[in-house]
Amino acid sequence: MNGGPATHHSGAWRHPDSDADGVTSYERYETLARLYEKGLFDGVFFVESHLPGFGTEQLDTIRFGGMLSLLDPLQILTAMARVTRHLGLSATMSTTFYPPYIIARAFGTLDRMSGGRAGWNVVTSFQDSDARLFGHDHILDKAARYDMADEVVEACLQLWDTWAEDALVIDRESGVFADPERIRYSTYEGKAVRYAGGLTVPRSAQGRPVLMQAGASARGMDFAARWAEVVFSPHSTGSALRDYYTELKGLMVDRYERRPEDCVVLPSVDVVAGSSDAEAAEYAASLDALVEPRAAMKVLEMSLGVELKDVPLDTPLAAIVPDDGKQVHGAVARLLGWNSEGRTFTLRDAALLQCTSDFTPRYVGSAATVVDQMQELFESGCCDGFIVTHALSPDSLSRFVEFVVPELQRRGLFRTDYPGTTFRDSLFR
Amino acid sequence: MNGGPATHHSGAWRHPDSDADGVTSYERYETLARLYEKGLFDGVFFVESHLPGFGTEQLDTIRFGGMLSLLDPLQILTAMARVTRHLGLSATMSTTFYPPYIIARAFGTLDRMSGGRAGWNVVTSFQDSDARLFGHDHILDKAARYDMADEVVEACLQLWDTWAEDALVIDRESGVFADPERIRYSTYEGKAVRYAGGLTVPRSAQGRPVLMQAGASARGMDFAARWAEVVFSPHSTGSALRDYYTELKGLMVDRYERRPEDCVVLPSVDVVAGSSDAEAAEYAASLDALVEPRAAMKVLEMSLGVELKDVPLDTPLAAIVPDDGKQVHGAVARLLGWNSEGRTFTLRDAALLQCTSDFTPRYVGSAATVVDQMQELFESGCCDGFIVTHALSPDSLSRFVEFVVPELQRRGLFRTDYPGTTFRDSLFR
Repeated sequence: MNGGPATHHSGAWRHPDSDADGVTSYERYETLARLYEKGLFDGVFFVESHLPGFGTEQLDTIRFGGMLSLLDPLQILTAMARVTRHLGLSATMSTTFYPPYIIARAFGTLDRMSGGRAGWNVVTSFQDSDARLFGHDHILDKAARYDMADEVVEACLQLWDTWAEDALVIDRESGVFADPERIRYSTYEGKAVRYAGGLTVPRSAQGRPVLMQAGASARGMDFAARWAEVVFSPHSTGSALRDYYTELKGLMVDRYERRPEDCVVLPSVDVVAGSSDAEAAEYAASLDALVEPRAAMKVLEMSLGVELKDVPLDTPLAAIVPDDGKQVHGAVARLLGWNSEGRTFTLRDAALLQCTSDFTPRYVGSAATVVDQMQELFESGCCDGFIVTHALSPDSLSRFVEFVVPELQRRGLFRTDYPGTTFRDSLFR
Repeated sequence: MNGGPATHHSGAWRHPDSDADGVTSYERYETLARLYEKGLFDGVFFVESHLPGFGTEQLDTIRFGGMLSLLDPLQILTAMARVTRHLGLSATMSTTFYPPYIIARAFGTLDRMSGGRAGWNVVTSFQDSDARLFGHDHILDKAARYDMADEVVEACLQLWDTWAEDALVIDRESGVFADPERIRYSTYEGKAVRYAGGLTVPRSAQGRPVLMQAGASARGMDFAARWAEVVFSPHSTGSALRDYYTELKGLMVDRYERRPEDCVVLPSVDVVAGSSDAEAAEYAASLDALVEPRAAMKVLEMSLGVELKDVPLDTPLAAIVPDDGKQVHGAVARLLGWNSEGRTFTLRDAALLQCTSDFTPRYVGSAATVVDQMQELFESGCCDGFIVTHALSPDSLSRFVEFVVPELQRRGLFRTDYPGTTFRDSLFR
């Protein structure tokens, strides 16, 4: 999710039951945190973004309430920490612009104060508009960004290792608050990253935050295989997911001598659950009707990088060839990432897919219908769990907890209680 | 205060009633926040520090539980925001190492989510050990640091101006979430600071965070006169405080066309209040007995930059001339900042002053005794309020709220309720 009106569904905030008015309130996020924990989720996860670039149609993402991250997620996670006891708390911070000390202190503090529940999604920034926010004209090329990310992670791991487990003594009798012998200062001298010193934050209950990543390219997968304990798969279905899963686990073993089970691979799914298939379908349709097709088309244009202004919405994608000659049909098929053969998508269909699910597979139906699909994918051995996204906040999440979680439990596919206290406990025990 | 065991008093954490065991718990800070708000404080304020440099006697600050900032204060302030409704929430962030986008996003988020209660204490970092944490060998010189600070503040003010007051629309009917016409992207091109873009955070209830500063040098006072709405005076007594107050207000008017009342000047005082003068004195003595004189001496050595290892504790300061010929007596008198004539300080006295009050004036006594001193300073017209520090956490703060606040109110010197909802309301209404 994010600190904004929509995760994937850009219309659901308009529903009378949505929590959109509280988008910058602590209460909104506390309610969601309680729901996630009630549903025994391993953790909650925040994506991150800057304000869409200016002078462009991207402003429509703001106008129509699309995928925006308005707020500092570490502060939101702090509020969520206070109303939960087990829920993992993870967010995204870029290695391209945040120095390791700032990253280590922020996630170290959350990890320590929450009792070992923090996770850091390691990303590199790839847009020039991000670079300009931080005073640079252009973004580094991909190889340099990933080399720098390796260094930032190494530096953060050292910083999180500053305090030994027993360094914080707090012995009133002897007057020793902490033992400097058990506090390890360190230095790092990389090509792009340097520091010398130590972190102020005592070691957390899980040692250090969980590392998360979403490597898609060869370089990204190498990075994930080396560091990640949670990977967001870029694919959610079929052979693409299977191949990704197999390749990543292979890289972990072959290149980095890690065990396959040291990292969970999670595809994303949008779940719209209801009391029956018919009710769920009706519910989904009522939410989707809140997306304006013309607004959605603008977001699709942005996503595809083409202009489609004069194309009627009911034109089949295959018939659209913009002035620049790009293949709209092929681009949408790539976004879909799953087999769309046998169905003729129109521009309207594609725009709605963009603004209701961001092209993530959608499981709509009763608990049995939804869990059938989750179970099939899970038991096919090409994922270790799921990233579940909700459309209408908080109602679609409530429905997942109310309908889907008990069915998963009934089939023995999901826990009935948290196995420990830390985020890493939930992920791996 | 800070996210550590001691604000000024390095022994009080050893008291059986101290909250030292909860030093990294949310609960500790929530208890304090509730107390501050019960006492109608304008706000709570966090200093910031990195781990003391390594390989030195500075490690004793860690060993004996001195002035340390273990945790990211923005996360602590978030927890404090959730248990209060009026309390101002302010912390320190360095313009030398934190880019404006990171500063503006962190304090902007706190300001927006807390309902307009954030304050940013603008500092420049001055230690090489801080520079090394961020990958630099040496700190910039003072002039360059302050020039950079001017630019960072200007950039942050622009970023906080991204969203007009009415930019966040959330109109379900029209489907407009926010109005891009009322979102202002901006650019900044300084010598040391650049950015182009906008801030994701909608405007807060008080427009932007309160700016705070503690300028002592001529350059620092210029900076304060230009930007600060709250100034922590480097002097707490006598003619030094009066001169500082007069000069700062003069600079505001003459150089920056601001009104004297646009910035409050606050000296620091350590208050140890009790049910009677005798009880307060006994209480203070019981806390001070928790400071180990030998440990205190090491902290004093660090503070003075001299070695005093073999000097007996009861040696008069005037008789101490270390190998490097520094004047210990003069240095301590400067730290004292107030008239110490007529009293012969020993090394033990100075070490205890270092570790019980950090040489801040200390008001010990009954409510009447404490308020007499506060009233005299306040009515002499050389301050607009106080920074009040507590020794034993949370008990010394409870005592201030229980004893001193009602007496201040009885004399008509202090509010009986909050005048508004924002931090700026409390400071200026």
